[in-house]
Amino acid sequence: MTTTASSPAQTASDQILPSFIAGQWWSPQDPQKVTEVTDASTGEVVARVSTDGIDIAAAVEHARTVGQKALGELTIHQRALKLKELATYLTEHKQELYDLSFATGATQRDHAIDTDGGIGTLFTFSSKGRRELPNANVIVDGDVEMLSRDGSFIGEHVYSRMPGVAVQINAFNFPVWGMLEKFAPSFIAGMPTIVKPATPTGYVTELCVRLMLDSGILPEGSLQLISGSARDLLDHLDYRDHVAFTGSAGTAATLRRHPSVQEGGLRFTAETDSLNAAILGPDATKDTPEFEAFIKAVFVEITAKAGQKCTAVRRVIVPQDRVDDVVTAVAARVTEKVVLGDPRTEGATMGPLASKDQQREVGAAVEKLMQAGGTVRLGGPEAAGQADPALDAGAFYPVTLLSFEDSDTPEVHMVEAFGPVTSVIGYTDIDDAVRLAALGSGSLVATVCTNDGEVASQFLAGIGAHHGRVHVLNRQTAQTSTGHGSPVPHLVHGGPGRAGGGEELGGVRAVKHYMQRTAVQGSPDMLTSITGIWHRGAEANTVTREDVEAGRGEHPFYKSLETLRIGDQFASELRTVTLQDITDFAEETGDKFYAHTDEEAAMANPFFPRRVAHGYLLVSWAAGLFVAPDPGPVLANYGLESLRFITPVTYDDAIRVTLTAKKITPRVTDEYGEVAWDCQIHNQKDELCAQYDVLTLVSKTWPMASSEASQG
Amino acid sequence: MTTTASSPAQTASDQILPSFIAGQWWSPQDPQKVTEVTDASTGEVVARVSTDGIDIAAAVEHARTVGQKALGELTIHQRALKLKELATYLTEHKQELYDLSFATGATQRDHAIDTDGGIGTLFTFSSKGRRELPNANVIVDGDVEMLSRDGSFIGEHVYSRMPGVAVQINAFNFPVWGMLEKFAPSFIAGMPTIVKPATPTGYVTELCVRLMLDSGILPEGSLQLISGSARDLLDHLDYRDHVAFTGSAGTAATLRRHPSVQEGGLRFTAETDSLNAAILGPDATKDTPEFEAFIKAVFVEITAKAGQKCTAVRRVIVPQDRVDDVVTAVAARVTEKVVLGDPRTEGATMGPLASKDQQREVGAAVEKLMQAGGTVRLGGPEAAGQADPALDAGAFYPVTLLSFEDSDTPEVHMVEAFGPVTSVIGYTDIDDAVRLAALGSGSLVATVCTNDGEVASQFLAGIGAHHGRVHVLNRQTAQTSTGHGSPVPHLVHGGPGRAGGGEELGGVRAVKHYMQRTAVQGSPDMLTSITGIWHRGAEANTVTREDVEAGRGEHPFYKSLETLRIGDQFASELRTVTLQDITDFAEETGDKFYAHTDEEAAMANPFFPRRVAHGYLLVSWAAGLFVAPDPGPVLANYGLESLRFITPVTYDDAIRVTLTAKKITPRVTDEYGEVAWDCQIHNQKDELCAQYDVLTLVSKTWPMASSEASQG
Repeated sequence: MTTTASSPAQTASDQILPSFIAGQWWSPQDPQKVTEVTDASTGEVVARVSTDGIDIAAAVEHARTVGQKALGELTIHQRALKLKELATYLTEHKQELYDLSFATGATQRDHAIDTDGGIGTLFTFSSKGRRELPNANVIVDGDVEMLSRDGSFIGEHVYSRMPGVAVQINAFNFPVWGMLEKFAPSFIAGMPTIVKPATPTGYVTELCVRLMLDSGILPEGSLQLISGSARDLLDHLDYRDHVAFTGSAGTAATLRRHPSVQEGGLRFTAETDSLNAAILGPDATKDTPEFEAFIKAVFVEITAKAGQKCTAVRRVIVPQDRVDDVVTAVAARVTEKVVLGDPRTEGATMGPLASKDQQREVGAAVEKLMQAGGTVRLGGPEAAGQADPALDAGAFYPVTLLSFEDSDTPEVHMVEAFGPVTSVIGYTDIDDAVRLAALGSGSLVATVCTNDGEVASQFLAGIGAHHGRVHVLNRQTAQTSTGHGSPVPHLVHGGPGRAGGGEELGGVRAVKHYMQRTAVQGSPDMLTSITGIWHRGAEANTVTREDVEAGRGEHPFYKSLETLRIGDQFASELRTVTLQDITDFAEETGDKFYAHTDEEAAMANPFFPRRVAHGYLLVSWAAGLFVAPDPGPVLANYGLESLRFITPVTYDDAIRVTLTAKKITPRVTDEYGEVAWDCQIHNQKDELCAQYDVLTLVSKTWPMASSEASQG
Repeated sequence: MTTTASSPAQTASDQILPSFIAGQWWSPQDPQKVTEVTDASTGEVVARVSTDGIDIAAAVEHARTVGQKALGELTIHQRALKLKELATYLTEHKQELYDLSFATGATQRDHAIDTDGGIGTLFTFSSKGRRELPNANVIVDGDVEMLSRDGSFIGEHVYSRMPGVAVQINAFNFPVWGMLEKFAPSFIAGMPTIVKPATPTGYVTELCVRLMLDSGILPEGSLQLISGSARDLLDHLDYRDHVAFTGSAGTAATLRRHPSVQEGGLRFTAETDSLNAAILGPDATKDTPEFEAFIKAVFVEITAKAGQKCTAVRRVIVPQDRVDDVVTAVAARVTEKVVLGDPRTEGATMGPLASKDQQREVGAAVEKLMQAGGTVRLGGPEAAGQADPALDAGAFYPVTLLSFEDSDTPEVHMVEAFGPVTSVIGYTDIDDAVRLAALGSGSLVATVCTNDGEVASQFLAGIGAHHGRVHVLNRQTAQTSTGHGSPVPHLVHGGPGRAGGGEELGGVRAVKHYMQRTAVQGSPDMLTSITGIWHRGAEANTVTREDVEAGRGEHPFYKSLETLRIGDQFASELRTVTLQDITDFAEETGDKFYAHTDEEAAMANPFFPRRVAHGYLLVSWAAGLFVAPDPGPVLANYGLESLRFITPVTYDDAIRVTLTAKKITPRVTDEYGEVAWDCQIHNQKDELCAQYDVLTLVSKTWPMASSEASQG
């Protein structure tokens, strides 16, 4: 099946925009109700949308059976790697997405946010999934908890994938990014997705889904598409499933009221647009680099996507004495830079809104703000009326700035004009600015523009809990900031209250949103079996150097990932530490800390009995005690985690080390993997002196795979 | 104000059970509607309950202003320490709680769950709060994310406390534990609490709240109590607030429908009772220790609190061929051990249900199960009718076992008899058992009784995502397990679907439920100011050994917590590593790994240019380069975190180390605190060779505080 990207108009006249349900492309044969979607600039029909007769139940069932099964056959790393392949494939086809997206009113700069941003999110999640999550199907969360004194009963937490379907219900403004930023984490988690895009721009999502399916990269059932109304979709969902919604607060409330959410335990998260603030710090006077950075940031937020971003700045909160300066500076920049027009035409820098409906809604919101006391300082209804008649067919709206005498005007903090519109208000001091910011009743993001760390701290303490993200802008970040309005895949996106109360992105945090966290209690053996990670107290397959020399066992360092198993253990002999050893170590390393060199001072220290061995001596000697010196599959020790010194070791004590294969993570893209080894150093009285994890890279085969070895 | 614990009957006749609102004890003067609460065993009135005319708005306002302010003046560790003091105080007064709790039908064994369990939860949270959280008011979550190539723009996540009130709406079964397990984490987070206990046992909660207030330990406004109907409480709440509900699924759904939750962004979590399963593994035949452990566990879950626990076993799922054996064994144990009676009387081992209402509801549920095909194997309505007439005044119900021919009978998986009642059903194989367990539509906890790790893994993969907790029971844990039915403060309590979808406890996870996670972006300097943790790239106050010797600066190791500041930095000189150094280190430590000793083999390794220095040599030398040898406020190096070796160091390279005070955590109970130092080792080409955090204990003063020093 080939794409129809090159001729959307032809699609529109020929057929209904197809959905992809239960493994098949589907369009209604004889639809009763069809919505015509028009080009935002020209008003021409670009798509016809209907889901009359769609079998939603089949889609849910397909995801829960075929999709769950296919995804479950892959590990987290394998799924993450597929995202990279998908991102590469989409990169090769991104011109098709650009070409089609112009019809939504998006400029080439907007494509960078939607198409490139979406693809970038896939790349980031692919990389983070493989670097920060295990190559397994469960994710261990946090530390082991001792629940009995003897260590026979312990507990910990594991995340396992939810057994249902991840439904995404998206907004019209980002038809590509909006889908991919939700798809990436749910796919890594192992949940199949059903995408329901917004009708005004769903034809772009349809193309992207088609490309993703055509790539051949995705497991069967892992991605389905509903092009148009989702109808009774929520009726079919329950506690096994997940719905991630982006859109208006009103629609979020309607969906949240559904019995599947209220009583069925359906997980529902919402990201709704909010009245985000940009706050100019009291220190950022007109002559500072911060003032200039602030004006540029506000300008970008008003004009990018013609202001149709959930994160756009709706409230510009500045010191009372700088309201006019800010209005003037932003207006000047708009006048200089903004050329409204069809984004396909030369020179146009800002496109139309997504639809005539949006144009009407933005106009109405501006009227409301004016009636509430807003003074139009740029743009507004008058300017809209005087626009170039050539733009009449499109959903254009001019950049509009309002200012208010009364900063507490409720409409400033409640009425959102979802277009290139912002309100400027003044504050008296930081407490007042914090109070005004909070009047938004919860927002996705706020920018605080200051070069004073103390000011930044005060703002965070005041507004942090009202926001999902706080962006601090100053001279050091003016050039390098990713911007107020851009969610980045590494950080959470979402916010409390008016912003919907949900959380998306945030790196691997987002993956866990599609999983169930379960506490697991049992013996170390059972938790070792369940997690695939060796737990202290569990059975081990122990060898000593004597065993190795007598041929009774193999040193675990000589096992490649083909034969190494968790629980493989090496137990060393004892080695006595003399005072001379400690003195020599101090001499050679230069670490002459008194606890190692001055008997009297050491004894005066609350933690040491007398002169003690350096902690670094212990770990260095431990390596000497456990190492297998000849070349073998253990290629390198790349680090060490969670080292704690427990019982001090003094001279004439002896130490021994126990090294156990704890966690094995084969890399999906390399001929080796990571092995973490549990290390415990005990003294001659069997007291624990130190514990840590040694991190190594171990070859999958030995000798290492070359072209012929990889056949084996 | 003294407690009325010793004569509850007198309270009942004299006055309405008081609430504690806006800093004052309050009872209605002339209540229109009063509920009389009776002793579960005797039927005598023990309390009169009414909230006619209560000023809920004042309580919410008091919490948001006075409570928030008072709690905000303390750090996380200070608040955690208060929990320990409170736990100690309640321990001294626990006999009063026992004495009063008998009236609810609880036995002395039940008091151990409710009173002692509640106090134990305070101790655990106090300890975990101080060990696992910073001594600050924000909690950093996860790693720093580089958002620009040059490192000038970075991001991370911080939790800050929510600005409103934590409301808890509790069930009748645990009037003490149910309050304290929610109070502990919200208090540490810094949110004031309003407690609304269930009316049938609210008089016990009232006593506990009175003790807590009388202790004088709690900051003003941090704890309020509504003894009776909460009326319009939810109307006053919004996205700044948090409601934690425990009780029936029906009430949870009603609360969830409230506009404050639907549209106001109010955080609402629910823990509802569920149809928890205990599953006997296929390997646990009648002659195994697991079979015996299983029978004991089921017995405990049926009889403790007369089966009135959200976590009690409602479904006993066993291999088809062992249904009768299990029924017989459990029945035998019940017959031998259970003596129904007023828990204040000698010899009684199981008390009544909490009220006559509960007795009726349990009876009705048993009838439903019988009508659905359940065979009564012990107890049931007939036995209830034949009970000792002396028990007629109380809400007694006999232990009841049912078995079912058809394991799929929907009522088994849906109808909960909230008393000493359980159903036994058979399964054919593990897949069937997993399927049956999932018919509960989401549960708090399941026990899997097996001694086979592979069986445990299969069960976890199948039922994990349907449960909040999975308890694996085998011969190793039979004596040490904390039990199927006992949530422990260390592990999450809650579950998906029917279990309410909420999460409580889980150690410091629970604290974060009362905080808002916010992404923060900015320069290293700004993030340092906001978090109080030094970030790489931020300004530092650097001294070299030359500076120290010339008196131009102080080595940071000679600064006590009084003068040490984050960003205080020591930069060492370069030290050259010779081949002889590497050879000597190999000889002395015994670490003769070929990468350090065999030029040819080292060169063949993919990661090394030629023979390289041991990683342990680098960190040992680094200590030599940065250490200040004389006695000083740095008392000990107790560990090391996140060590990564980056660029290998070969002979004739030179290394230098930069040590920077990164994080300072004064202990609230000791004369010293923890200081984490950022360490970076660079070579002569300024390439990063290793990075890690050195963990030290540093005195608050120097010389160390003794009785006279602490005056200074």
